Amino acid sequence: MKRSHKILSILFLITIFAAIFTISASATGADSSGASYAASAVTGNETLQEVAEGVQKAQFSANFVWVMITGFMVFFFQCGFAMVETGFTRGKNAAHTITMNFMVFLVGAIGYFLVGFALQYGGVGGVGGLGTGGGTLDQMVSIDGFGGLFGTKGFMLSGTYDAGIYAFFFFQMVFMDTTVTIPTGSMAERVKYSAYVIIAFFISMIAYPIFGNWVWGGGWLSTLGKNFGIGHGVVDFAGSAVVHSMGGMMALSGAIVIGPRLGKYDKDGKARAFPGHHIPMAIIGTIILFFCWFSFNAGSTLNAGDFRLAIVATNTMIAGAIGGLVAMFYMWIRFGKPDPSMTANGSLAGLVAITAPCAFVNGISAFIIGAIAGLLVCISVAFFDNKLKIDDPVGAISVHCVNGVWGVLALGLFADGSYGDGINGVAGGVKGLFFGDASQLLAQLICVGVLIVWGFGVSFLFFKFLDKVWGLRVKPEVELEGLDRDEMGAYGYPDFQMIKD
Amino acid sequence: MKRSHKILSILFLITIFAAIFTISASATGADSSGASYAASAVTGNETLQEVAEGVQKAQFSANFVWVMITGFMVFFFQCGFAMVETGFTRGKNAAHTITMNFMVFLVGAIGYFLVGFALQYGGVGGVGGLGTGGGTLDQMVSIDGFGGLFGTKGFMLSGTYDAGIYAFFFFQMVFMDTTVTIPTGSMAERVKYSAYVIIAFFISMIAYPIFGNWVWGGGWLSTLGKNFGIGHGVVDFAGSAVVHSMGGMMALSGAIVIGPRLGKYDKDGKARAFPGHHIPMAIIGTIILFFCWFSFNAGSTLNAGDFRLAIVATNTMIAGAIGGLVAMFYMWIRFGKPDPSMTANGSLAGLVAITAPCAFVNGISAFIIGAIAGLLVCISVAFFDNKLKIDDPVGAISVHCVNGVWGVLALGLFADGSYGDGINGVAGGVKGLFFGDASQLLAQLICVGVLIVWGFGVSFLFFKFLDKVWGLRVKPEVELEGLDRDEMGAYGYPDFQMIKD
Amino acid sequence: MKRSHKILSILFLITIFAAIFTISASATGADSSGASYAASAVTGNETLQEVAEGVQKAQFSANFVWVMITGFMVFFFQCGFAMVETGFTRGKNAAHTITMNFMVFLVGAIGYFLVGFALQYGGVGGVGGLGTGGGTLDQMVSIDGFGGLFGTKGFMLSGTYDAGIYAFFFFQMVFMDTTVTIPTGSMAERVKYSAYVIIAFFISMIAYPIFGNWVWGGGWLSTLGKNFGIGHGVVDFAGSAVVHSMGGMMALSGAIVIGPRLGKYDKDGKARAFPGHHIPMAIIGTIILFFCWFSFNAGSTLNAGDFRLAIVATNTMIAGAIGGLVAMFYMWIRFGKPDPSMTANGSLAGLVAITAPCAFVNGISAFIIGAIAGLLVCISVAFFDNKLKIDDPVGAISVHCVNGVWGVLALGLFADGSYGDGINGVAGGVKGLFFGDASQLLAQLICVGVLIVWGFGVSFLFFKFLDKVWGLRVKPEVELEGLDRDEMGAYGYPDFQMIKD
Repeated sequence: MKRSHKILSILFLITIFAAIFTISASATGADSSGASYAASAVTGNETLQEVAEGVQKAQFSANFVWVMITGFMVFFFQCGFAMVETGFTRGKNAAHTITMNFMVFLVGAIGYFLVGFALQYGGVGGVGGLGTGGGTLDQMVSIDGFGGLFGTKGFMLSGTYDAGIYAFFFFQMVFMDTTVTIPTGSMAERVKYSAYVIIAFFISMIAYPIFGNWVWGGGWLSTLGKNFGIGHGVVDFAGSAVVHSMGGMMALSGAIVIGPRLGKYDKDGKARAFPGHHIPMAIIGTIILFFCWFSFNAGSTLNAGDFRLAIVATNTMIAGAIGGLVAMFYMWIRFGKPDPSMTANGSLAGLVAITAPCAFVNGISAFIIGAIAGLLVCISVAFFDNKLKIDDPVGAISVHCVNGVWGVLALGLFADGSYGDGINGVAGGVKGLFFGDASQLLAQLICVGVLIVWGFGVSFLFFKFLDKVWGLRVKPEVELEGLDRDEMGAYGYPDFQMIKD
Repeated sequence: MKRSHKILSILFLITIFAAIFTISASATGADSSGASYAASAVTGNETLQEVAEGVQKAQFSANFVWVMITGFMVFFFQCGFAMVETGFTRGKNAAHTITMNFMVFLVGAIGYFLVGFALQYGGVGGVGGLGTGGGTLDQMVSIDGFGGLFGTKGFMLSGTYDAGIYAFFFFQMVFMDTTVTIPTGSMAERVKYSAYVIIAFFISMIAYPIFGNWVWGGGWLSTLGKNFGIGHGVVDFAGSAVVHSMGGMMALSGAIVIGPRLGKYDKDGKARAFPGHHIPMAIIGTIILFFCWFSFNAGSTLNAGDFRLAIVATNTMIAGAIGGLVAMFYMWIRFGKPDPSMTANGSLAGLVAITAPCAFVNGISAFIIGAIAGLLVCISVAFFDNKLKIDDPVGAISVHCVNGVWGVLALGLFADGSYGDGINGVAGGVKGLFFGDASQLLAQLICVGVLIVWGFGVSFLFFKFLDKVWGLRVKPEVELEGLDRDEMGAYGYPDFQMIKD
Repeated sequence: MKRSHKILSILFLITIFAAIFTISASATGADSSGASYAASAVTGNETLQEVAEGVQKAQFSANFVWVMITGFMVFFFQCGFAMVETGFTRGKNAAHTITMNFMVFLVGAIGYFLVGFALQYGGVGGVGGLGTGGGTLDQMVSIDGFGGLFGTKGFMLSGTYDAGIYAFFFFQMVFMDTTVTIPTGSMAERVKYSAYVIIAFFISMIAYPIFGNWVWGGGWLSTLGKNFGIGHGVVDFAGSAVVHSMGGMMALSGAIVIGPRLGKYDKDGKARAFPGHHIPMAIIGTIILFFCWFSFNAGSTLNAGDFRLAIVATNTMIAGAIGGLVAMFYMWIRFGKPDPSMTANGSLAGLVAITAPCAFVNGISAFIIGAIAGLLVCISVAFFDNKLKIDDPVGAISVHCVNGVWGVLALGLFADGSYGDGINGVAGGVKGLFFGDASQLLAQLICVGVLIVWGFGVSFLFFKFLDKVWGLRVKPEVELEGLDRDEMGAYGYPDFQMIKD
C-alpha cells in the first residue's frame, strides 16, 4: 500500500506541475488558432477567371487524393488475399502460398505496364474522372463506331506524361491484380510456382485487359445499350464481372485442369477436409480484404465530387456484414458450429456480390443482396466440394465466380434508377427488373454468357496448353512433402515443430 | 571475382542502354508536364454563382474524402483488436478469440443499421460536418427543448438517400463497433460464442446508441451547458467517454459476472500469469491500433476544412508514444524487464486518454496526459489483477475504462480555450480547470457518474440476466481443453505442435 | 437433393420479397439523389473576395487530407519493418525483435518532439506546402546566407499552435522514424534492448535531424546549387539519402561494431544461413512496406495540388515490382529456386532506389532504376555476407545503404528536366547526366560523400563509444538461449513447441 501511495503522490505532483507548465507554455501560442489561412494569401485582387481556375484545381486535388489513396488501399488487397489463402491452406506449403501471392503482384504490375493497360484502355477517348486525363489521353487513338475489341496505345505509358493517366493506370493496375490473385486460391498446394509466373503474365497482359476493355474500356459490351438499346449496356460499377467473376471463372478452369490435391477424395469419392493451418492469419486477412473493399468499391467513382461514394461504401459494409452473418448462422444451424472459414467466406461473398450494384441500390437492397450471397456461398462450397468434386482449397470459385455472377445479375434486378445517368452513353438512371427495366437484366445476362466463354473457356484452353508444354502441377512426392522445400528452398516455419500430414 | 565482374559489366551496359532509351522515350512526352489542367476546362465564361457553387462542391469533396478514408481506417481497428486480444491470450483459444472479434463487426454493423443509428442520431436536426447532410437529415424529427433520451428516425436508413447521411452512418458505425469489441478482451478464453453474439446485438442496438445520443446526438448530457450553464455540457471529442469508457465499463461488469479463468487464482488467491501465446501478433495489433487511432481522433472533425485535425493527430501521436514509454520504464524499473505487453498497453492507455481532449490541448499537454495514462495503466492492471481479483486477460478494463475516465477528466483539466467555440451551443472555447473554468470539469464528472450507472450498472444487470437465461460461460472441460474445438469446430493451429497447458 | 431444393425455394422467395420490399422502401427516398448540395448553401450573394477565400480553404483542405492520410500510412511503415525483421530472424528472438521495432517508434516520436524537429526545421523560413504554415513558422528564425547547420526553434512545438506546423511535424516525424528502425535489422538477434533505446534517442534527436537539415531543412547541401551553381544542390525527393541511406549507413556501422551472430561464420570463415523463422510474416511485412511506400513517396509533394503525385506513385509501383522480379529471376537462375527473402528484398531495393528520383523521371526510367536495384541487392547481400563477413540478418545494409546510394545517384543520371522548377531556389527542371546536366550528378556525389562521413563515420564513433560505456551486445549465453527470456521476460511463442537451434 505504501508503494502505491507513493506512486499516487508522484502522480499528483506531476499533474500540478503539468498544469503550471502547460498554462505558461500555451500562453505564448494560444492566440493563433490554426485558422489564420484566410488573411495570408488571398489578396483581394484575384479575377473571376483566376478564381475559377483555383476552383478547378481544388476539385482536381480532391479527386487525385481520392483516387490515389483508395488505389493504395486496393493494392493492399494483396495482403488480404495472401493471408486468407495461406491461413486456409496447410503449413507445409506456407512459404509457397504466401510468396506466390506476392509474386503475382510483381508480375502483374509489369505485365500490365508493358502490355495490359494499352490493350484495355488504349482505345478510350478520354478519362474524365480525374479531371486532367483529357489532355494527353486524347493522343491515344479513339476507336469509334460499333464497339471495340482492344486498345492499341499506351504500352509502357510511353508517349504520355499526364498525371491523370498515371493515376488512372495506378488504379486500374491494382484492380487488375485482384483477378490475377484469385486463381492462386483454387490451385494452391499443388501448382508449380513457375507455371503461375506464366499464368500471371497471361492474365495481366491478355485475359483480363481484353475483357476489361469490353466492359470498362469502351468495348462492345459497354455499347450494347447505346447501339442496340439493351439497357445501359453491361454495367459493372466496381468489378463483380470484370474483376471477380473473371478471376473466379479462371479459378474454376484452373482447379478442373490441375485436379484435386492428393488425398482430397478417397476411393469412394468422399471429400476429406484439410483444415487451414492458421485460422488467425486467415481471419485477419479477411478483415484486411473487408477494409480494402471500401476503397475498391467507393474509389471506383474516380471522382471525389461524386458523393455517391458514401452510399457505395455503406452498401459495401452492409452487404459484407450480412453475408458473413447469414453464412455463420446457416453453418451453425446445419452443422452445429459457427464455422470460422465459412463466416469469413460469407462476408467475402457479400462483398463480391455488392461490387457491381453498390452504386445503384440503397442500403436495404444491399442487405438483401448480401444475405443471398451468404447463403449462396455455403451451398456452392458444398456443391463444388461434394457433388462436382472440384477441389478448391479456399473457396475461391464459390466466393468470386458464383457470387460475382450473382452480383452482375443483382444489378439487373435491384438497380433503382437513382444513379447512372449517362453511363455508357445512355441517358437516365440504371434500372433493374424490379424497377421496370428487363433490358438491363438482359445486358447483364449477356455479360455472364461472355464471362463463361472468355473467362472460363479461353482460360481452360490456356491451362490445358500450359499443362502440356510446361506442366501445371508439382510432382506427387513434392506435394506430399510440402511445396516449400523443393519449390521455394525455404520452409515457412523452420523453428516450429510441425505435425506431419 | 570473374563472375561479379561480368555482372558489373552487364549492369554498366544496362545503364548505358537505359540512358539512351529513356532519353528517346521521354523526348516525345516531356513537353506535357501534368499541369495542363487549367487551360482545358475553365472557359472564362463562368458566373460568380457558378464559381461559388464549384467552391462548395470542392470543399464538400475534400470533406467526403476525409470522412470516408478516416472511417475506413477506423473500421481497421477491428484488425488491431483482433490481433491484440488473440496474441495476448492462449493458443488453445486462438480460433475462438479471433473469430469472435470478427463476428462482433458483422453483428454490430447489422444491429446498428437496423436500430442503433436511429436511436443515436434519429433526433438530430442536421449534420453539418459533411456539408450535405442538412438536406435529408432534416426529415428526421428534431428533438428540441430539455435534452433528449434517444432518436426515433432512420431505422435501416430508410426514408433517405442522402450521401451525407450515409457517410455519417458509416463513420458512426465503425466508431460504435470499437465499443462492442472491448469487452471481448476482458471476457476472453471463457465466454460462450453464442452469448457474445447476443451481447454484440445488445451493445450495438441499445447500450451504445443511447449513451451516444446523450453526448453526441444532441441528448441531455450535451445540453448541460446550454441549459444549465455547466461548461459546454459534456464534451468528448473522439470518444474517451462514448466509445472507450463505455466499452471499458462493460468490460468490467462482464469480467465480474463471468468470473476469472480456471486456474487464474490459486487457493490463497494469488494470481497466476497466463502469458500471451503470440507476442508478435499482439505487438503488430498494437501498431495497427495506433495507426488507426490517428484517423479515429482526427477524422472526428468530420470536416477537412477544420485544420485542427493536424493538431489532433499530432497530439494523438505524442500521447500514445509517451504512454508506452512511461509504462515501459515503469515496468523496467520495478520488475527488471521492459515488459512487451505493458509497453503496448501503455501506448493504448495514452491513446485512450487523449481521445477526448485531443482537439482542445497543445502538444505539451498531450505529453502530460499520455505520461499519466502510461503510469495509470500499470498501477491499474496490478490493482485489478491482484487486489480486486478481477481477471481481465488483455487489460481491457485498465486501458479503456480507467484511462477512458482519465481522458474525460483530463479534458476538464487541460482544455485551453483555443478550440470548441460553439460546441453544444455554447459560445467561446472549451476551458478546463487549469485554464480557469471549473464548470467544464463538473460536466465531465457528471459524465463519469452517468458512465458508471449506464455503462457499468445497466450492463451488469444485462450480463446477470443473460447468464441466467442463456449462460455466459462455457463448461469447465471446454475451457480446460481450449474453446476452439467445442465452440468453433476448428483449431487455430492444427499443423503446429502445441504445448498443453 | 431435396434439401437443396428447399433452400433454393427459400432463396427464390427471399428474392421476391426483397424486390417488393426494396421497391416500396426506395420509393420514398429515390427523389433525393445525393447531389442536392448546390442549392442548399450557396446564397448567390457571395462576393468575389469571399469566393476566393473559399477556394483557398478548399485547396488547403485537400492538402491537409493528403498530407495527414499519407502521413498516417508512413507511420504504418513501422508495422512492415517489425514484421519483415521478426519474420526473417529466429523464433527464439521474436519477442525481442518485434518489441524493439515498436519501441523505436515510441522513443523516436518523443526524441523528435523534444529536440529533433527543432534541429531539423527550426531554421526554415516557411513551409509553403501545407498552405497555412507560413503564418506561425515565420516566428522561427530564418537562417540566411551560406547554408545552415541546424535549426534552433520549435522544441516541443512550443511557441506555435499552427495546424500547418503540426501537420508538417507529424509527416516529418514518421519519416524520421524509418531511419531509426533500419539499423535494428542489421543488429538484430544480439543487440541489447537497453542499448537500442539509447541509439533510438541518438538518431531521432541528433543524427537524423542534422543531416535532414542539410538536405531538406534549408541547410548547406540544399544550397549548393543556389550558392555554387552545382545543379539544384542536393535533391532527394522522398529520402533515398535522408532516410534510407542514412539508416543504411548506420546499419552498416552498427553491424561492424557489434560483430556477427554467434555461429554465423565457422572456423574457415564460411557463412552459415540462419533461415527466417516465419516466412509468411516477413512477406506480409514486405507487402505492408510496399503499401506504405506509395504514401511515403507521393505524400512527399506535401501538396494535393501538385498532381505529379500520381506519377510518383506509379513510378514507385513499377520500380518496386521490377526490382522484386529481377531479384527473383536472378536467384532462380543462379541457385535454382525463386528465393522468397531475396524476392522481397529485391522489391524493397527497387523502392529504396526510386525514392529520390521518383518525381523527376517517367515510368520507363523507373523501370530501369528498379531493375538495376533488384540486381544490386542480390550481389550486395552476397558480398557483405561472404566477402566482407559483415552479418546483417535481414539485408538492411544492401537494401537501404547500397540502394539508397544508388537512388541518390540515379536521380543525377535519369532526372529528365520535366519537374523541379525552383527547387532549392534554382530555376528550371532538375536534369541528370543523361539529359545533359553533369553538375546535378556532382551534387548527388557530394551527398554520398557526406553520407559516408556523417552517416557511417559519426555513427561508427557513437556505436564504439556506446559499446564501451554501456555495452551494445547481450552476453553469449543469452544470445544462444534466445534474447526473449532474459531481455524481455516473455517468450514470443510460449504455447508452441519450438525447435532448439
